[in-house]
Amino acid sequence: MGSATIFFWLQLPNVTKSYRTALTITGIVTLIATYHYIRIFNSWSEAFTVASKDGGDYAVQLTGAPFNDGYRYVDWLLTVPLLLIELILVMKLPQAETVSLSWKLGLASALMVALGYPGEIQEDLAVRWFWWCLSMIPFCYVVFTLAVGLAEATSKQPSPAAASLASAARYLTVLSWCTYPFVYMVKSVGLAGPAATMYEQVGYSLADVLAKAVFGVLIWAIAAEKSAVEESGKLLPN
Amino acid sequence: MGSATIFFWLQLPNVTKSYRTALTITGIVTLIATYHYIRIFNSWSEAFTVASKDGGDYAVQLTGAPFNDGYRYVDWLLTVPLLLIELILVMKLPQAETVSLSWKLGLASALMVALGYPGEIQEDLAVRWFWWCLSMIPFCYVVFTLAVGLAEATSKQPSPAAASLASAARYLTVLSWCTYPFVYMVKSVGLAGPAATMYEQVGYSLADVLAKAVFGVLIWAIAAEKSAVEESGKLLPN
Repeated sequence: MGSATIFFWLQLPNVTKSYRTALTITGIVTLIATYHYIRIFNSWSEAFTVASKDGGDYAVQLTGAPFNDGYRYVDWLLTVPLLLIELILVMKLPQAETVSLSWKLGLASALMVALGYPGEIQEDLAVRWFWWCLSMIPFCYVVFTLAVGLAEATSKQPSPAAASLASAARYLTVLSWCTYPFVYMVKSVGLAGPAATMYEQVGYSLADVLAKAVFGVLIWAIAAEKSAVEESGKLLPN
Repeated sequence: MGSATIFFWLQLPNVTKSYRTALTITGIVTLIATYHYIRIFNSWSEAFTVASKDGGDYAVQLTGAPFNDGYRYVDWLLTVPLLLIELILVMKLPQAETVSLSWKLGLASALMVALGYPGEIQEDLAVRWFWWCLSMIPFCYVVFTLAVGLAEATSKQPSPAAASLASAARYLTVLSWCTYPFVYMVKSVGLAGPAATMYEQVGYSLADVLAKAVFGVLIWAIAAEKSAVEESGKLLPN
């Protein structure tokens, strides 16, 4: 995540001015994630200990300190709206549409994260499902808006390469977003204990790398391609 | 590794735009390695303790905490595909070839690292050899593709100096890459205990310095030479 940030920011001079705000935000998203993953790493190390007794097999034990999943939700509360805004910015829609889409998707996605947290920290499966369902309302709204909105924006891209990258961004968004509700369900279907906790953390981490770093590389590729098209004069900046 | 990163990034304005992405990635590879070597250092310090009893000879003892070789494999999973991509980028092949080679070599090399790990953490020699053999399939594919592909790319370099540097990069790649399977075999041939663990770590670390920092200096030299050729107008940028 940290390397992705540095990559995006070092690439700022290589894109035209129109795409620098999108690329700056892309780097901020992975920077915020870097910070929270360090917190998550430390919280994890404090919650579990690995040791071998008398030179025997290694075993994982609880230390008694809780593993704090709150870092993940604070991270999402900040990064998910920013991720959507970077995607909207790189599409370079008319200004009024950019502002209105940013507000609608930004607020809906923050609401989605906020509604997911009360369920995440619950052991009671019914309560977990209740918050999952509530959180899925803004989730569906955002994913649907993106799937439809990006299909339209894709057809307006200035070159076939840009259109194919925008289409890849669309599929990656839907794929990586849909991972989260399924990972959330790992514990809701009654799985518990160390294995469920591990799968949940691996799942969220993989989805985060896809949704932030890999998605960011796509945003950069779109920005670089559109900058090249603009600079070659095939398209006048609108 | 950290110093190499700083060197590569401070050199960014000294090469033409065409080679800045390659040099940015070269610095990211050594940055990721810097991070993981700090983690490896800490894990090593936590796993072994050196003390003298009653003023006598110093002895190394296990603390009970495991030494985590996973950091090395996570490092390779990220850096090995990036290393190949930086080499492809500095060769400045046609865009379609760059994209297709990056995907093929990137995925094959990630697969190679992922297949090596299950064997690395095994005590059972037969299982170690099994994963070593599996991992050698993508290994041979990547090394062979590089050896052939770089020979061709070398002949197309814009100046004798660039051609000789590209040829050096080719030999260094094959030499440093072939170190890893041999180091992996240290434990597979039945060597065990502290000495085998030490030789393995020394071997991997030396190979890493060659494959990342020294190799990166070659990438920088190629980028600098080709930038000089482009700027002197002997070759029009394609």
